[in-house]
Amino acid sequence: MKVGFIGIGRMGAAMADRILGAGHDIGVYNRTPGKTDDLVKRGAKQLASASEAARYGDVLITMLENDHALSHVAHGHEGLVATLPKGGVHLAMGTHSVSLIQALTEAHEKAGQTLVSAPVLGRPPVAAAGQLGIITGGPADAVAKCQPLFEAMGRRTFDGGLKPAGAAAAKIANNFVLVCAIEALSEGFALAEKSGVAPSNFLEVLTDGLFASPAYKIYGKLIVEQGYLGEPGFAAVTGLKDVNLALAAGDAVSVPLPSGNVCRDRLLSAVARGDGQRDWSVLALEQKRASGMA
Amino acid sequence: MKVGFIGIGRMGAAMADRILGAGHDIGVYNRTPGKTDDLVKRGAKQLASASEAARYGDVLITMLENDHALSHVAHGHEGLVATLPKGGVHLAMGTHSVSLIQALTEAHEKAGQTLVSAPVLGRPPVAAAGQLGIITGGPADAVAKCQPLFEAMGRRTFDGGLKPAGAAAAKIANNFVLVCAIEALSEGFALAEKSGVAPSNFLEVLTDGLFASPAYKIYGKLIVEQGYLGEPGFAAVTGLKDVNLALAAGDAVSVPLPSGNVCRDRLLSAVARGDGQRDWSVLALEQKRASGMA
Amino acid sequence: MKVGFIGIGRMGAAMADRILGAGHDIGVYNRTPGKTDDLVKRGAKQLASASEAARYGDVLITMLENDHALSHVAHGHEGLVATLPKGGVHLAMGTHSVSLIQALTEAHEKAGQTLVSAPVLGRPPVAAAGQLGIITGGPADAVAKCQPLFEAMGRRTFDGGLKPAGAAAAKIANNFVLVCAIEALSEGFALAEKSGVAPSNFLEVLTDGLFASPAYKIYGKLIVEQGYLGEPGFAAVTGLKDVNLALAAGDAVSVPLPSGNVCRDRLLSAVARGDGQRDWSVLALEQKRASGMA
Amino acid sequence: MKVGFIGIGRMGAAMADRILGAGHDIGVYNRTPGKTDDLVKRGAKQLASASEAARYGDVLITMLENDHALSHVAHGHEGLVATLPKGGVHLAMGTHSVSLIQALTEAHEKAGQTLVSAPVLGRPPVAAAGQLGIITGGPADAVAKCQPLFEAMGRRTFDGGLKPAGAAAAKIANNFVLVCAIEALSEGFALAEKSGVAPSNFLEVLTDGLFASPAYKIYGKLIVEQGYLGEPGFAAVTGLKDVNLALAAGDAVSVPLPSGNVCRDRLLSAVARGDGQRDWSVLALEQKRASGMA
Repeated sequence: MKVGFIGIGRMGAAMADRILGAGHDIGVYNRTPGKTDDLVKRGAKQLASASEAARYGDVLITMLENDHALSHVAHGHEGLVATLPKGGVHLAMGTHSVSLIQALTEAHEKAGQTLVSAPVLGRPPVAAAGQLGIITGGPADAVAKCQPLFEAMGRRTFDGGLKPAGAAAAKIANNFVLVCAIEALSEGFALAEKSGVAPSNFLEVLTDGLFASPAYKIYGKLIVEQGYLGEPGFAAVTGLKDVNLALAAGDAVSVPLPSGNVCRDRLLSAVARGDGQRDWSVLALEQKRASGMA
Repeated sequence: MKVGFIGIGRMGAAMADRILGAGHDIGVYNRTPGKTDDLVKRGAKQLASASEAARYGDVLITMLENDHALSHVAHGHEGLVATLPKGGVHLAMGTHSVSLIQALTEAHEKAGQTLVSAPVLGRPPVAAAGQLGIITGGPADAVAKCQPLFEAMGRRTFDGGLKPAGAAAAKIANNFVLVCAIEALSEGFALAEKSGVAPSNFLEVLTDGLFASPAYKIYGKLIVEQGYLGEPGFAAVTGLKDVNLALAAGDAVSVPLPSGNVCRDRLLSAVARGDGQRDWSVLALEQKRASGMA
Repeated sequence: MKVGFIGIGRMGAAMADRILGAGHDIGVYNRTPGKTDDLVKRGAKQLASASEAARYGDVLITMLENDHALSHVAHGHEGLVATLPKGGVHLAMGTHSVSLIQALTEAHEKAGQTLVSAPVLGRPPVAAAGQLGIITGGPADAVAKCQPLFEAMGRRTFDGGLKPAGAAAAKIANNFVLVCAIEALSEGFALAEKSGVAPSNFLEVLTDGLFASPAYKIYGKLIVEQGYLGEPGFAAVTGLKDVNLALAAGDAVSVPLPSGNVCRDRLLSAVARGDGQRDWSVLALEQKRASGMA
Repeated sequence: MKVGFIGIGRMGAAMADRILGAGHDIGVYNRTPGKTDDLVKRGAKQLASASEAARYGDVLITMLENDHALSHVAHGHEGLVATLPKGGVHLAMGTHSVSLIQALTEAHEKAGQTLVSAPVLGRPPVAAAGQLGIITGGPADAVAKCQPLFEAMGRRTFDGGLKPAGAAAAKIANNFVLVCAIEALSEGFALAEKSGVAPSNFLEVLTDGLFASPAYKIYGKLIVEQGYLGEPGFAAVTGLKDVNLALAAGDAVSVPLPSGNVCRDRLLSAVARGDGQRDWSVLALEQKRASGMA
């Protein structure tokens, strides 16, 4: 299969490499040059522009960091909507807002093209191992066309429905449930600790039973060990962006998300106090501050 | 070991039975008569009053439903504080408020007795199998004295520190983290569903990875299948009581719990609309109502 | 008219003095002695106990600081319920919880007595000038019986209905609306100031038009001038008590108060950070902290 | 003075009429034709496009409904930034987002022009009477240049600082304080009413003293009389837009607005339930629903 790929960051590089490894013909483009060198050495074709990528193959993949980057590459004279061949499929795999995915769905449709939204679950090492979870949203035939690519990149797919915006919402809602869990942990730990319970013991209570899952183990440990003071895994500002995506998605369909408000406010305070680049488990530090513990 | 046991409800009966099965000499008392019959047939001694139970053995266990019941049995002329022998240990295993446990700690101390707080994790079937998780709080020697009993009833203990109130707070905080998870799920599912994603698919997204734990699987399923309309596992009013315990515990140590506020308000609305006896996953129905979906 | 009066604090002293000044025969009792001296000099009768006050006249007034004080004086062998003559009226003028007023209503009724709840609006200088607002709740004939006393103490009465608990709720709800206004001001000022608007100018915007009322003028000024760092008019801990009364009143009738949660959490943080004795406009300082401005 | 005016809606028409009445030479443009007829009859010059308005006089006023309308007219080939003469002043009097005003400030600056932001306080009848409150933000000389216009339209100006975005924030913050007051009233009335107090009596309690201001009198009355079921003064969807402006303004400067979250969620629920076109005091209906009263 012939594939264009735009966005060779840490995630994109790992995903493109998996596609290459599965024997597909892949052409790659990245705004900042140099990032594609390794892939080109291993057989990918270097492309000079987004429009070249759009015209390269049967499917065009974008793996971009945020709405701004995708919007920038999609619109305008040499943008994806203008240059993707009629009948072409744009497979957007970044985490984007429901409203952008919705707008792009309509723009592609109008141009006789199809948008498939397929945001992924997993960090770069997971992507490198081809173990991503992939939530698919779009017309059945277009999703089917992308299936060989999903198999190259992922452990499995989840059916996000026939609307690209649905898959976007599912990814956003998944991250939303996660940030709420981190916030609840932050509150629970503050309560336990200030009541005289050793945080590590409270972590055992939680993760031994009901909450024996990666989310609680990973973030519980970060909180207990104050890992948020060290190297960030996922920055608070990015977390804030994700919470804002959830609140905006809620706004779009009139769904209030009161737990999300709590997370948003704590992350805003973290940013206001200069902790925006810390790991988003810094929510626990904010909770401690609000409790007079820090 | 000789043990008095007050409170033979569903949990208490299972726990007392485990103690009996481990070969201890147990005397049982329950305010409503009849509940102790089975235990007595199997060898427990029937006691006529709380004070008889207090005087029966080396340790007195209470397993009562709420603060009111424990407070009632503890105070007054024939109450536990007045009748437990000097040097005696009161092992309180119900879920109680930090303030009551704190007050009782002081009252027992003043009377030359010791309170150990040891709330449990698990429902009646878990108790019947001797698989409870037990969070212990109290002076080390008093906790050690209760160890054979913990072994009879539980899968393991968690160290809740040297203050009984700490163990109470840890149990309350555990339930708090749970209700927050149910609320976050409720919000996430509403967002996903109203955005066009099948709830069962969103449940797969969540529980396949980060949230592969009993809490999310059980409550996710209840939400997807609207199980809150059926037989309740844990009533909303009881959930509200637990959230209020958490907020009161936070008040006692000046720890704000903003996520808890959200849960409290949704549960209050559920009660206001006549759903207080439904399972507390009725939070999802409240979220649907607030989203114009129900 | 013959009146017993319990609770000669700053408010009580001013109110009792007004009654005395209106020509009524008043007997006064205060737990801490000495507080009644001035009144006695001016003609009040010194009473030795709460029960003496209960038996002194046609109406017994209590003006106590909190639930604990009222509960203490009401119950027990020599308490008000036990000693107030059959047919007697207990006029409770402090700010108390709905649940205590409800319980006391029932206790008095059972004893053939009547409770009237009549919480007041206004600080000590207002009380001294006989300009209090008085919210009355209770059976019409009992309220009518107290009318001459209301006239001596107040500028006017507000009809809080036939249930004493209603008047209590109205007072609590009034304070609730106030604390919400202070919180909203705190947030608005932080937004304006951090956006580059001089706080004093924003205060003019607000109070020149829509919010030209004492609440906004007084608290806006306190915020602009950081008056919360000076002498407190109303302590944050007392404000927190009042917010908790509101939330408890909401709990009693299943009314969620989400704006109240916000105030409660900010006040809890203030207390946690050692600002509990500052004026409750310290909410603005908490908001600044959460905004990285302090 | 020679003035171009874009945006002849109900507010714009009244404001342009005041300018005309003060003897200025005004040229008017409105996207939908016909709206300018009355003004033209009274002496205003009919203009054919936004760019004509931009080139018409010393100052160009825009009074547009929202960001979208202002953004549309400002950008592009024939937009205001491209066509306003060098040294010209754009006086933006609508309620706009901080981020749009900020972006427009920079765009005008780059083009050698000046933006003054001057949002107004007051409804159409107030505008017709020349009694608006006007919050000014921008460089001192540019604001001074607009002074004769402010005098024609307003009762007074408020100094919103030297940055146009500040004045925008002040207007947004003013509306924010108002919506929080309506929400707090909604909660307070629900509490009082469900506790047995007649709403009209509670309104008296509030507005007789601390809250004797237009905001509380007007909205208290709307709540007591369920005026939100009748003709809307200010639609819930517009209120939601304003709350979102406040939250976005808070986001821009890292100021969490927890009371705003509460209002946003209630308004979202109102919209979700089909009440988006009702008056925004429909917050009280939402509160009643959440309290099981409606």
